[in-house]
Amino acid sequence: MRAEIVSVGTEILLGQITDTNAVELGKAFADCGIDHTHRQTVGDNLDRLSAALQLALSRADIVVTIGGLGPTEDDLTRDGIAQALDDPLVHDPTVESHLRAIFEKRRLPWLDSQLRQAQRPACADAIPNPNGTAPGLVCRKNGKTVFAMPGPRGEFVPMLDLHVRPMLARLGGGLVIASRTIKIVGMGESLVEDKLKDLMANADPTVAPYAKTGEVHLRVTTKAPTAQEADEKMRPVELEIRRRLGAVVYGSDSDTLESVVLDLLRAKGQTLATAESCTGGWIGQKLTSVPGSSDAYLGGVVSYSNEAKSRLIGVKQETLQSFGAVSAECAEEMATGVRAALGSTFGVSVTGIAGPGGGTPDKPVGLVYIGVSGPSGSRAHRYSFPGTRESVRLRSTQTALALVRTAALGETGL
Amino acid sequence: MRAEIVSVGTEILLGQITDTNAVELGKAFADCGIDHTHRQTVGDNLDRLSAALQLALSRADIVVTIGGLGPTEDDLTRDGIAQALDDPLVHDPTVESHLRAIFEKRRLPWLDSQLRQAQRPACADAIPNPNGTAPGLVCRKNGKTVFAMPGPRGEFVPMLDLHVRPMLARLGGGLVIASRTIKIVGMGESLVEDKLKDLMANADPTVAPYAKTGEVHLRVTTKAPTAQEADEKMRPVELEIRRRLGAVVYGSDSDTLESVVLDLLRAKGQTLATAESCTGGWIGQKLTSVPGSSDAYLGGVVSYSNEAKSRLIGVKQETLQSFGAVSAECAEEMATGVRAALGSTFGVSVTGIAGPGGGTPDKPVGLVYIGVSGPSGSRAHRYSFPGTRESVRLRSTQTALALVRTAALGETGL
Repeated sequence: MRAEIVSVGTEILLGQITDTNAVELGKAFADCGIDHTHRQTVGDNLDRLSAALQLALSRADIVVTIGGLGPTEDDLTRDGIAQALDDPLVHDPTVESHLRAIFEKRRLPWLDSQLRQAQRPACADAIPNPNGTAPGLVCRKNGKTVFAMPGPRGEFVPMLDLHVRPMLARLGGGLVIASRTIKIVGMGESLVEDKLKDLMANADPTVAPYAKTGEVHLRVTTKAPTAQEADEKMRPVELEIRRRLGAVVYGSDSDTLESVVLDLLRAKGQTLATAESCTGGWIGQKLTSVPGSSDAYLGGVVSYSNEAKSRLIGVKQETLQSFGAVSAECAEEMATGVRAALGSTFGVSVTGIAGPGGGTPDKPVGLVYIGVSGPSGSRAHRYSFPGTRESVRLRSTQTALALVRTAALGETGL
Repeated sequence: MRAEIVSVGTEILLGQITDTNAVELGKAFADCGIDHTHRQTVGDNLDRLSAALQLALSRADIVVTIGGLGPTEDDLTRDGIAQALDDPLVHDPTVESHLRAIFEKRRLPWLDSQLRQAQRPACADAIPNPNGTAPGLVCRKNGKTVFAMPGPRGEFVPMLDLHVRPMLARLGGGLVIASRTIKIVGMGESLVEDKLKDLMANADPTVAPYAKTGEVHLRVTTKAPTAQEADEKMRPVELEIRRRLGAVVYGSDSDTLESVVLDLLRAKGQTLATAESCTGGWIGQKLTSVPGSSDAYLGGVVSYSNEAKSRLIGVKQETLQSFGAVSAECAEEMATGVRAALGSTFGVSVTGIAGPGGGTPDKPVGLVYIGVSGPSGSRAHRYSFPGTRESVRLRSTQTALALVRTAALGETGL
């Protein structure tokens, strides 16, 4: 079984957006054991699109288009597929009433241009799109399957996971490629590689590292007739990795540092409050991205200005004057202050110089203090993070979460 | 003059790496006024590669390959180009001695496999690669130009800027394609298109919309001998767009909603404080991503729990009890409360149900109240946002920033 992607959009060719959807789809093909030998990208042009689709249909059993499903004149994917499959475009009343319902619910004026999105090749079935107006399509004709998926990432990814991936898995039939991602925080990529050299040399299961800002991910991959057999091949490898690396392994697959921290706190009936300066709310944003986070995360302050630090969580003027806002003393008072203000089990704080400006010889860009306060005391940690403003802020966010995890695990003096 | 990219690498198709080099190259074509209508991606397979190159040569004057220039068996781009151009592979002694010099300098044992990198089609000239071993290639035959560039980003980008871009500019005949992105918040894509139908039908400058979560971007593009002439062609179109759409146009090109809001406040010596519930700090995170945001953004609270709402910014218990945390009353008290707590010119608040759980018939998932408080009063706005938890949270964040912009522009009753 062979698949081919046709990405549609002039903005991709002009380099204005990066085609990350095709990356996700490529992974999905691999996971489903479907071969993937070509990818095409074409602009918003009907003739080129339908020619690209005909070429793809000539060499692949499954063709997936990405993008061009919107309501506007240059959303041509529906027309292109109809042309390439030589199948008439028909109007889908179910989709139309669904569209009208959305517009009513959102109190938006109805526009007949929306009706473009209710068109489909006669052989097509609509794929639900809970996150947007344009439905996806699955067209079956002459033994070929053509999927049409929307371009916006917030619509593409859920549609892939909920609807397209299961269909691909069925089409892939035979072998499944299974992989498991083991997630590490607090150990650099080269040290991880050094400890796992022999495992990374194995042919099956393969073990490959991926460095992410502030984290290292290890991807264990194998191929087997069933997902269960694949799991059985991967399990001993994962156990060995966890044995060698210990507590720096914080989770796997869909685990995130924030979800793991929240689970730990929830399990012990503990709570967390945040006081963020240079991260400006990023820690809170990550924690609250997890559904149900309110059980364990009470909230906190974005104490970006000194006023905010003193007025909201009672950081002392003397502290700010004698040590400055970027100091171990201030970080510790922020953590203790927000913990007291919200009555949480733990308080975590970040104050630093994210740059590009604001650095001095003794307090350079990248200098960050992270404070943790808990039942058995409080402590500030000093870091000097490399990179851009964004990378300093992200590393600070990740490290703060990692410190809360350690504290919640009861592994510090706290 | 038309160009086409052929990206080479099974790891791209498997979704193990994102093809960001093709994005850079797409921008370079546009900058040089070279049309770019197709992109192909193929795995490390000689026949498929040479077929893809023949297809590209059949419709483009310039073909650029990315990747497959290394010393290993599956680095087949040199062979593929030779096959597609029907040009013999020859050995390049200059490249060989260059390679041997590198190995000596790095004190690495010489491997004859390296000699693959000294091969080139007879018609090719080598392009220097100061950051790696494999040189690039430029092949000229039958009026076509084929560039071969290395895949590693650290080698690709310098080679593009130093050597390939100047050659592309000459080939492009000095025409530049310039484009300008006009950014809109608070008006849907179809309504925007409805107001600009005639402009979007124009052949030059072209006007194309694309939707981002919570925003619509319009790309105006034209081609001219100089960047200045291109600007002169685009300016009237942009002015007309701004005239028709009015205040929903918040900026252009590198402007972001957060940078525009901060500039507005800074210009008037005004300040902002945030009280975030369901967005959990996202507004603060975006504002503080802008260097120098501290001039205008004082900070705020992540009042995720009711305790936080009452303890940090004095939301009344009665309000929480009689109307609930997700209510216009609570949103308004949050905005007023954080404004008072930090003494800022404006306070903005968000409280809502991001889902997936927590919805009720009268307060469904997606219901969000956004409060704005300023010198001339305060007000809460009610929204019902579609989509995932992330999309509800992002739309809330964008809308809150848009409301602050409107308030700072003095366009509301505030």
